[in-house]
Amino acid sequence: MPKLRLFTPGPTMVPEEVLLEMARPIEHHRTQMYRDWLKECTENLQYLFQTKSTCLTLTGSGTAAAEGAIVSMAPPGRRVLVCHGGKFAERWRDVCRRFKIDHVEYEYEYGRGAGVDVVADHLKKDPKIGAVITVHSETSTCALTDVKAIAALTRERDCLMMTDCITSVGCLPFKMDEWGIDIAVTGSQKALMLPPGLGFVAVSERAWKVIESFEAPIFYNNLRAFKKSLADWDAPWTPANTLVRGLRVSLSMIRKEGLENVWARTARLAKATRAAAQAMGLTIFAKDPSDSVTGINTPANIDNDKWRKLMKSRYGVQLADGQGQLKGKMVRISHMGYVDDLDTLSAIAAMEMSLRELGYKCEPGIGVGAFMKMVGA
Amino acid sequence: MPKLRLFTPGPTMVPEEVLLEMARPIEHHRTQMYRDWLKECTENLQYLFQTKSTCLTLTGSGTAAAEGAIVSMAPPGRRVLVCHGGKFAERWRDVCRRFKIDHVEYEYEYGRGAGVDVVADHLKKDPKIGAVITVHSETSTCALTDVKAIAALTRERDCLMMTDCITSVGCLPFKMDEWGIDIAVTGSQKALMLPPGLGFVAVSERAWKVIESFEAPIFYNNLRAFKKSLADWDAPWTPANTLVRGLRVSLSMIRKEGLENVWARTARLAKATRAAAQAMGLTIFAKDPSDSVTGINTPANIDNDKWRKLMKSRYGVQLADGQGQLKGKMVRISHMGYVDDLDTLSAIAAMEMSLRELGYKCEPGIGVGAFMKMVGA
Repeated sequence: MPKLRLFTPGPTMVPEEVLLEMARPIEHHRTQMYRDWLKECTENLQYLFQTKSTCLTLTGSGTAAAEGAIVSMAPPGRRVLVCHGGKFAERWRDVCRRFKIDHVEYEYEYGRGAGVDVVADHLKKDPKIGAVITVHSETSTCALTDVKAIAALTRERDCLMMTDCITSVGCLPFKMDEWGIDIAVTGSQKALMLPPGLGFVAVSERAWKVIESFEAPIFYNNLRAFKKSLADWDAPWTPANTLVRGLRVSLSMIRKEGLENVWARTARLAKATRAAAQAMGLTIFAKDPSDSVTGINTPANIDNDKWRKLMKSRYGVQLADGQGQLKGKMVRISHMGYVDDLDTLSAIAAMEMSLRELGYKCEPGIGVGAFMKMVGA
Repeated sequence: MPKLRLFTPGPTMVPEEVLLEMARPIEHHRTQMYRDWLKECTENLQYLFQTKSTCLTLTGSGTAAAEGAIVSMAPPGRRVLVCHGGKFAERWRDVCRRFKIDHVEYEYEYGRGAGVDVVADHLKKDPKIGAVITVHSETSTCALTDVKAIAALTRERDCLMMTDCITSVGCLPFKMDEWGIDIAVTGSQKALMLPPGLGFVAVSERAWKVIESFEAPIFYNNLRAFKKSLADWDAPWTPANTLVRGLRVSLSMIRKEGLENVWARTARLAKATRAAAQAMGLTIFAKDPSDSVTGINTPANIDNDKWRKLMKSRYGVQLADGQGQLKGKMVRISHMGYVDDLDTLSAIAAMEMSLRELGYKCEPGIGVGAFMKMVGA
């Protein structure tokens, strides 16, 4: 004791029923049973992404899925606009660099979403831009970008819209087809309530036309190979089939709760967490906050490491540090996946008690009280 | 009932203690606990590969590991000789093609190992060859290549030796450092007794010099990124940490049994299986058979599909079909990982009974008897 309560923005907590499903005797993946699983998962992924298009399941992290997406949508002659204001978007910029993809960068402030007007300007000035890379919820800064508005801009010309939805699909409102997103990417260890090891790419018909017009310089994360195999409910290389087995269970849990209810729960937890932080005299890092993960600035005179370590050792509550230049400056708490009101309330209580133990002044229960007012009464 | 007995050459059966270890509550990977796990696993992987060099753990299948290895060891100017005589070696040839790597092919007969003399000739005639790709145990044909002898050839010049050990490391004698192998690749779902989802690459100091001389055109499976992170017992992208947790257990099981004992068990099962097949009047496909998986030709007048389906439905014994042009022509039975004498004896019994049920003539118990004589008395 204490029990571990994992509030990092991935991996997130995995339901016991998913863990136990994956502990069942191993099955082969070239069987009717596996094909049935993959078919069911693929249909439920379409629901999750809100799309009628192809949803591919790759064996790898979200970075694998993003690599596959980026190299596949950038044939020679199609310039990519990379919008970045955080560590993950910078990684997708690095993917463009590594594959020598013709790209331009739009760098925005950490904690902000990408400016829709700025993207509009880029598109207006540079007719060569044929694809835009955006991050819906930037996990490193806990900030949200209005990808719906940016997607609308790309509908006016021959321009693909790729969105990193790693901490948005399955927790934040996201409507791939309705919004006009061409490629959406996520990973298993976030809202999907699974261990890490699967990446997902949803691809519109519009995007397939580009992807199938050339041979992308990639083998393992090759989207065309995955599409071809999916026609037989198969994968081109051996899939992480125990994770797919778990995926069946976690997706059916999401379907049972209903996607809109999942979105509402995530939003409620985020709103109540922000209210709790404010009541405790703390500040939120992001000026355009995402509802899937909240970044709270570490107060002056409090050692971030000590604070996080005390929360974990004394109360079992594990939050994430900031990343890169934000390391040591904030704590991040996830609202994704298998987490409910009392889970998050407990984490807020641990934050309060630990802060006070480290000398921070605030009235006992003030954060928890603000949280309770938001989620209940 | 019946119980499933998985004899496919990957995925192979996973021990209950590994399955249950992976079902424990999920932990974050950027913790001291995970770093300790990865350190322990890496040291045990060095034992498994019989090397003092770096062993990298990637999140992906063996194909991910092979992609990373191949693109990393082939800078411009270093021609690659791809030796292929089966589906998997052909896949590595396809990786060379996809990345436009300068390569020459040496195609040998299915069921045979690569000819050492032919490789020697290629090396002699073409001074531009600076790397050789071989498959130690070709899973599709169940054939073995003498990679020790080929590695010796590459020691005489500036030539890297890459070996696909996906169905050899941890089951067949393999001594990376002693033999002079530069890059060895494997996956989790074979001799390592885990579900699919992890790939491993062991890299010699000699290979690192080449790998670090240029920037390989790959992001996700980039060996340099993995080496850099490993210095802190970390991974560059989120790892499949539940599988790493299982890996700790399976590698400690192998260490406890002793690698030489594992090799001896695998060889004993293979030898006894070949003797059983012969006693039943069946023939072995490979002329240079591997001990990790045995391919038995389907007898004339027996429908391969019916035979395999009957073994599975009536006795729970699942064997693999042939692959590619060998589909429908053979059954493949694995001797890798978590499988012992009586397991394999049961599979032989199921083969016998099913064959007879389909009209094949052989004396009841003749295969099992031959097997018993080989493994016991």
